[in-house]
Amino acid sequence: MSRTPTAAPVDDPCVDDPSVVDSEQLKRVLDGRHHGLREEIRAAHDADWFTPRLHVDEQAHQAWVGEAMQRLTRTPHQVLGFPTAYGGADQVGASVAAFEMLALGDLSLTVKSGVQWGLFGGAVQALGTQVHHDRYLPSIIDFSLPGCFAMTETGHGSDVQGLRTTAVYDPAAEEFVVHTPEDSACKDYIGNAARDGRMAVVFARLVTHGEDRGVHALLVPIRDEAGVTAAGVDIEDCGPKAGLAGVDNGRLRFDHVRVPREALLDRYAHVAADGTYSSPIASANRRFFSMLGALVRGRLSISGAAISATKVGLDVAVRYGQERRQFSDPSTGEEVRLLDHPSHQRKLVPAVARAYAFTFAQAALVEELQAGHDGRLDQSASRRLETDIAAVKAGATWNASRTLQTAREACGGAGYLASSRLPELRADTDVFTTFEGDNTVLMQLVAKNLLTAYAAGAAGGLGAARTLVRSLASRVADRVRVPWPTDVLDPARQVALLREREEHVLDGLARRLRAAVSAGADPTAAASAAQDHMQVLGRAHVDRLLAVAFDERVRSCGEGADAGPTADLLARVRDLFVLSRLEEDMAWFLAHGRLGRADARAVTRHVDRLCAELRPHAVALVDAFGIAPAWSARTTTTGGQQGLAA
Amino acid sequence: MSRTPTAAPVDDPCVDDPSVVDSEQLKRVLDGRHHGLREEIRAAHDADWFTPRLHVDEQAHQAWVGEAMQRLTRTPHQVLGFPTAYGGADQVGASVAAFEMLALGDLSLTVKSGVQWGLFGGAVQALGTQVHHDRYLPSIIDFSLPGCFAMTETGHGSDVQGLRTTAVYDPAAEEFVVHTPEDSACKDYIGNAARDGRMAVVFARLVTHGEDRGVHALLVPIRDEAGVTAAGVDIEDCGPKAGLAGVDNGRLRFDHVRVPREALLDRYAHVAADGTYSSPIASANRRFFSMLGALVRGRLSISGAAISATKVGLDVAVRYGQERRQFSDPSTGEEVRLLDHPSHQRKLVPAVARAYAFTFAQAALVEELQAGHDGRLDQSASRRLETDIAAVKAGATWNASRTLQTAREACGGAGYLASSRLPELRADTDVFTTFEGDNTVLMQLVAKNLLTAYAAGAAGGLGAARTLVRSLASRVADRVRVPWPTDVLDPARQVALLREREEHVLDGLARRLRAAVSAGADPTAAASAAQDHMQVLGRAHVDRLLAVAFDERVRSCGEGADAGPTADLLARVRDLFVLSRLEEDMAWFLAHGRLGRADARAVTRHVDRLCAELRPHAVALVDAFGIAPAWSARTTTTGGQQGLAA
Repeated sequence: MSRTPTAAPVDDPCVDDPSVVDSEQLKRVLDGRHHGLREEIRAAHDADWFTPRLHVDEQAHQAWVGEAMQRLTRTPHQVLGFPTAYGGADQVGASVAAFEMLALGDLSLTVKSGVQWGLFGGAVQALGTQVHHDRYLPSIIDFSLPGCFAMTETGHGSDVQGLRTTAVYDPAAEEFVVHTPEDSACKDYIGNAARDGRMAVVFARLVTHGEDRGVHALLVPIRDEAGVTAAGVDIEDCGPKAGLAGVDNGRLRFDHVRVPREALLDRYAHVAADGTYSSPIASANRRFFSMLGALVRGRLSISGAAISATKVGLDVAVRYGQERRQFSDPSTGEEVRLLDHPSHQRKLVPAVARAYAFTFAQAALVEELQAGHDGRLDQSASRRLETDIAAVKAGATWNASRTLQTAREACGGAGYLASSRLPELRADTDVFTTFEGDNTVLMQLVAKNLLTAYAAGAAGGLGAARTLVRSLASRVADRVRVPWPTDVLDPARQVALLREREEHVLDGLARRLRAAVSAGADPTAAASAAQDHMQVLGRAHVDRLLAVAFDERVRSCGEGADAGPTADLLARVRDLFVLSRLEEDMAWFLAHGRLGRADARAVTRHVDRLCAELRPHAVALVDAFGIAPAWSARTTTTGGQQGLAA
Repeated sequence: MSRTPTAAPVDDPCVDDPSVVDSEQLKRVLDGRHHGLREEIRAAHDADWFTPRLHVDEQAHQAWVGEAMQRLTRTPHQVLGFPTAYGGADQVGASVAAFEMLALGDLSLTVKSGVQWGLFGGAVQALGTQVHHDRYLPSIIDFSLPGCFAMTETGHGSDVQGLRTTAVYDPAAEEFVVHTPEDSACKDYIGNAARDGRMAVVFARLVTHGEDRGVHALLVPIRDEAGVTAAGVDIEDCGPKAGLAGVDNGRLRFDHVRVPREALLDRYAHVAADGTYSSPIASANRRFFSMLGALVRGRLSISGAAISATKVGLDVAVRYGQERRQFSDPSTGEEVRLLDHPSHQRKLVPAVARAYAFTFAQAALVEELQAGHDGRLDQSASRRLETDIAAVKAGATWNASRTLQTAREACGGAGYLASSRLPELRADTDVFTTFEGDNTVLMQLVAKNLLTAYAAGAAGGLGAARTLVRSLASRVADRVRVPWPTDVLDPARQVALLREREEHVLDGLARRLRAAVSAGADPTAAASAAQDHMQVLGRAHVDRLLAVAFDERVRSCGEGADAGPTADLLARVRDLFVLSRLEEDMAWFLAHGRLGRADARAVTRHVDRLCAELRPHAVALVDAFGIAPAWSARTTTTGGQQGLAA
């Protein structure tokens, strides 16, 4: 395996030629720091990597994915995040960008590679120590040791602390005994398990000296090199799924399986030969969350993959809307292109704007992830990053489901045919909303973290003063019944509206919980009763993150007098993104006196106007996603298999 | 084939036992007039009709559907709508109810049967005359003549008037020449075409004496009895689709195919031997819409099927939410059932309420359909029925997509496995939103029809006065900035709110279009610019229809002092339905001064409360759907194929 990890980040290529809107320039803006790497991958992957596999059954699809994995090992891109010493480049940000590029193609391959290098390899890297790295990373990287990430159980997915698989230490043998005590403790939906996996990172309750030390991760062989299932391990195929047919998801059951003491991934906890347990982190709870925190890259990767799949769907639907005509214009007698119908613009143009917004927010988080990897983030910044990754993952995956559904409907019957790729995209990404963290649970995590930071701020000096001022301002605004008209086209005001909403919701939630607890409620019960409030907060946080990231990106390209046409176009896409979000959540802004009824009408008017103004640029806006035609079957208006445009 | 069409409608069985909430009683309320027929079908269809076909490829699934179609011919239920003389019962309402029952099982079988008996048979019945009925209905009914409904073309789906296939009359031979003049005129996505169909009702531009008479329907043989494709006909399989793998969708191309003069379905237009064209309807436009109007049963059937599939999904998800536990309650140490988490209730309980609302609205339309079939509707009532069917079809199919998606996510990874049935339900129903009328286009049709009725009302005496009063009231309300608090729990007020919104939107739209036309705009251009306004009107119309139908059903079960627990429960389900709709569209009610900020808070509070109050009844509420466990694979918390509960 020859590997030259040259794809180092390049400088941000946001240059502007003041002459004309150029999708190549827009592409550079969207590609961001990793433009060079992305272009390298675009050049390296031909149609063979991407063409949808029509008529292929699960077995054949899984076999194809297996071969494609081998081909991937001959390029450096997917393993850039591993340490340089083992053939990587220590570039976790670049590895996420490479994963995003892969996700423009076959999503089964994408998820399979994510299981191998992101989850399995990532866990060995992040939770293991030198001995595990030396022994396993090379064969993980070259895929000669296919592995699984066995965390979820049938009865425990979101509540990882409640896992029931046990790993009891036997000092006599210096071994752990890994066991599945009940049906609902089977490891379930585990990628790479049904066909290929030879080893699994198994999350289990560690028991030493009879004491439950909480959930830890151990390496457990599940098959030998010949593919024979290990003794005491039972593997069952999960059977057909909604999508991702090329991924071999399975169910694992352990019957007192013995692994050596070194099987414990011991970065956060060590078990001595005699069974003495020690950890660099005293609090069991903090230890557990440090362990999970080390795994956020997987979550950010899924977010990126969801954004990529969304772009492919929009690429297909926008081109179809451009080609396909329906209903005659009586003034010309000509049939009207779908995209010239305002109701069609309303479906697709704001969706394109959302894809831009998520791209910029994702890029900002990828930067932060690399900063964390390089040790440039302090503890509070790390925690903020975890919060924001959870938020954007939930937002991006829900947005993928929604947008791909819209894209499918916008292509009518043609969008229902597998040849359009839309059914596959929709079905493959569907599980993204509930794996790598169930979105609803992630939003509660976001809210909880924001509350924690808020409480910390309230306890501090300056923070407390600011909080108080905001809280008062919120209450005052809440009483103002006829709000002043606001300039909804002022970008600063747009971002401020979304920021103020988040602060208001956070402040209201904090007050609600405080009041409940003061009145004698159990804090968990109080939080449980406020779940819907927490969801609102999570979504408000996502919107704010997206608006800020988009706005910063536009500013970095120049705005106002010195803006070229690309920057100007981008600014209008940002306006459309923010205004269509305001329009969707107008009830909140009206009910809380943040916008008035005249504003509400103005927002809708501007959304209509921006959809019409951006419509002539719709194809350029999706061209900028940089999806080579060969990668994506495109539904055309003439139909049939010939309908896959070249 | 022995057939005893005994399943005559029974009296409405809404009796109430004042002792306890009984899902059997709720089932009778939901079943409505056709309770007896539904029970008969429940008894007749065992698991073999319904068990999801895991691991089955398209060919095998299509073969199974073919066999099941043969089995269906041995029961009378699906063909109750055909004339008694041919073995039916002249009960179109009952035929829709039977179709709804079938849709609790395999949706490929459902759609296949709908193509054969609803679309193909329905077109022969509604557009043909005695000669066609005598010659074809018996073999359509016993499925010895499988047929297609070839309306949609690759380039023309929603715009049926723009179809390009031609049928040119040749007086010398007394034949029509059916021809596909261009690629985009291929008949596309045609069910029954790729494998089984032997004849097609082909919609084509009729040309006689060189004159284009508009779109008409003709019977064109496409295969002989041995299954050999007819000369001049080219048939292509549409290939894999998102769902409905058991339906053989194909693409038809005609190369100057000759059919005899009697092939024209001539209820609305006749061509004499010499080519003289005549019609009982003078206006070409009215003739065309009469023809389409005769086919609304198909649309109502899809609406019913969507509602059935939604119920199956809710049945699966509610039971899973009842069984599966996640996160411990610190006060008890016990893990909490998913359905006891408020955020989970918020996902599923309002969705159950929506399923109830759609069921009642659908039942009301089925009654009207039968009334129309019996000649009991005048022209304006018929037109209103067409409008309402379009509205409820769009609403019910969008609701199916949305609710099945929610149900899938509410089951997490288990919901992604085919064994849960949710992926199949989601994928199979997906195309419902764009076939039998694209929903967006249907909503525009609804708005257009409402505008026409409004204009007719405005032109008349009383109507005009009422319209003027309403219009003034709307404008006044629009200026009232601080609306009075309203009793959102008063059912009359709830319905009034939704009715007033519809009237306000309709009035505003009418004024907008009038103003545009007065200012010199072309009427089509003005309507095009107002497409989004028309969508809002269509959705407002759906909400009003649902609320009225639900409210009437509750009233018919008794309310207030004399209400038993079932009626009381139903009233709370209605409240939840209406309030959650108000909550979702709160922006409109606030922006138009129909509800105030205190109302908005009250609505959210009541939705929260009703979710919690109805939660203990969640299983009873889905039990009342009457889905036998054997029909529906249910995902359990222990996973695996064993996870299909008996």
